[in-house]
Amino acid sequence: MTETQTPDASSLAGLDGFEQLTAMFEGRLPGAPIADLIGLEGFGGERGAFHVELVPRHEHYNPIGSVHGGVIAALLDTACGCSVHSTLEAGELYISLDLTAKFLRPVTVDSGRLRAEGSVLQRGRRTALAQAQLYDARHRLVAHATSTCMIFPAG
Amino acid sequence: MTETQTPDASSLAGLDGFEQLTAMFEGRLPGAPIADLIGLEGFGGERGAFHVELVPRHEHYNPIGSVHGGVIAALLDTACGCSVHSTLEAGELYISLDLTAKFLRPVTVDSGRLRAEGSVLQRGRRTALAQAQLYDARHRLVAHATSTCMIFPAG
Amino acid sequence: MTETQTPDASSLAGLDGFEQLTAMFEGRLPGAPIADLIGLEGFGGERGAFHVELVPRHEHYNPIGSVHGGVIAALLDTACGCSVHSTLEAGELYISLDLTAKFLRPVTVDSGRLRAEGSVLQRGRRTALAQAQLYDARHRLVAHATSTCMIFPAG
Amino acid sequence: MTETQTPDASSLAGLDGFEQLTAMFEGRLPGAPIADLIGLEGFGGERGAFHVELVPRHEHYNPIGSVHGGVIAALLDTACGCSVHSTLEAGELYISLDLTAKFLRPVTVDSGRLRAEGSVLQRGRRTALAQAQLYDARHRLVAHATSTCMIFPAG
Repeated sequence: MTETQTPDASSLAGLDGFEQLTAMFEGRLPGAPIADLIGLEGFGGERGAFHVELVPRHEHYNPIGSVHGGVIAALLDTACGCSVHSTLEAGELYISLDLTAKFLRPVTVDSGRLRAEGSVLQRGRRTALAQAQLYDARHRLVAHATSTCMIFPAG
Repeated sequence: MTETQTPDASSLAGLDGFEQLTAMFEGRLPGAPIADLIGLEGFGGERGAFHVELVPRHEHYNPIGSVHGGVIAALLDTACGCSVHSTLEAGELYISLDLTAKFLRPVTVDSGRLRAEGSVLQRGRRTALAQAQLYDARHRLVAHATSTCMIFPAG
Repeated sequence: MTETQTPDASSLAGLDGFEQLTAMFEGRLPGAPIADLIGLEGFGGERGAFHVELVPRHEHYNPIGSVHGGVIAALLDTACGCSVHSTLEAGELYISLDLTAKFLRPVTVDSGRLRAEGSVLQRGRRTALAQAQLYDARHRLVAHATSTCMIFPAG
Repeated sequence: MTETQTPDASSLAGLDGFEQLTAMFEGRLPGAPIADLIGLEGFGGERGAFHVELVPRHEHYNPIGSVHGGVIAALLDTACGCSVHSTLEAGELYISLDLTAKFLRPVTVDSGRLRAEGSVLQRGRRTALAQAQLYDARHRLVAHATSTCMIFPAG
């Protein structure tokens, strides 16, 4: 593992949240292991609005023949979290306090590529509220979420 | 793949929800692919209350150094869903309408084996409300969820 | 109480949800007692999107000096519920299964007239998902909600 | 209005949250105006668990013939909020970030006296998670809620 793949306090110290995400998705900083495990991809966005994609496969299924709610929650949580992350100033951190996911339609391999589009509804000094819509390949809304995050000074 | 690994209308028709779950976790019916993908294990319970476990690993991590909210949501959603599933009569199906997950403490590999304990708070004819607590190996509450499910007649 | 103030099966039978709401807010059908009790007013909208207003007063306060969360929840629940109601066909009923309210900013008498703007995000055959934003008189977002409703055939 | 009915910084400064609530419900400190408006009564509890009651009347009704979700939310929010309040040390304040209410059964005047029983599920340094169950006079569960609160140092 090379030095550029290992973020540390010094490599992140000068970057704001949007710059951190950009460095991550361009491969200059390491990404999220969970993304490789379940197949999160297609990250992108701007300050205050981030999206992520996933192609549903049989390995994502619950025993009743559709994509497990946890995979859908992972997409929604990622879109909400990255949207908030992208608003952080250098020296700020965040944690997610909750995720309220609504499952609107069964998702299967026939749904095609899923895209979760997150955005920040409100950004206070100590908290932020984000939402995310999850669309299937035909752009039907299949799930929705809101998430409250808490903002901290780092260290 | 053998016949006993392939559930179909006939093999499930006579079983109620608890019997279906038992057949699944004893290997007589196929389980959930998602369980293999992310490492859900240690399923068990009774009618109206089910638990599931997972040992957190680095592959479950988000980029900020802890287990991704989607993995925690998957545990909570599974415990809630199986708890409701275990109350179904033969010929009934369910779907989850939502999951409200609360993240109370960061979860890392140091948290040790996680256990999500679900239970049904209310079971009506058409809906059910379930909750789940997620504990770490020291039995500290690290996350909580509620989930509303809709109940249907099959077919 | 006159006959026009007393709705019954026959007076509602031919109306769809939007027509029922219109009849109510124009005074041809009786409105909601809760509206008089807490001061809900300024109802209006179109099919799939309804708003409601309230002027905060000291009688709405909790003991810690701001408008009680229940009053804010009442505004959000009304905007979500009316938005779903306005999509009903003649012969359909609905009930709210839940309300997830997020409180973003303290509300006081200085907030001025509040306006909750609801809209339907998804309308299926058996369920609907609505959201509502609550704004203060300076059009700052002070609260947000989502609500899942179940749709039934009447009778 | 006498001096003992007017709380100020000095009268509250020495009291912890439980002592503040006790002073309020014994009439030594003023209570919540909202309680008079909608009929909240029967407050009581201990550190970490508080209850509140309400007798449903027609003035609490929505236009579709049952108690409005906002009244139910007010009961649940009060039980959650007081439960958290009762854990505060002298010099701490709290605000509610959210309320996730689940409506399990229609509530009418025939439901009889309602009782919301709140309790704190988790109390951290900066946040707390509370839940509440709402029971009718026959002790059937009619609604449920969870609420996340943020804790602050006063002033």
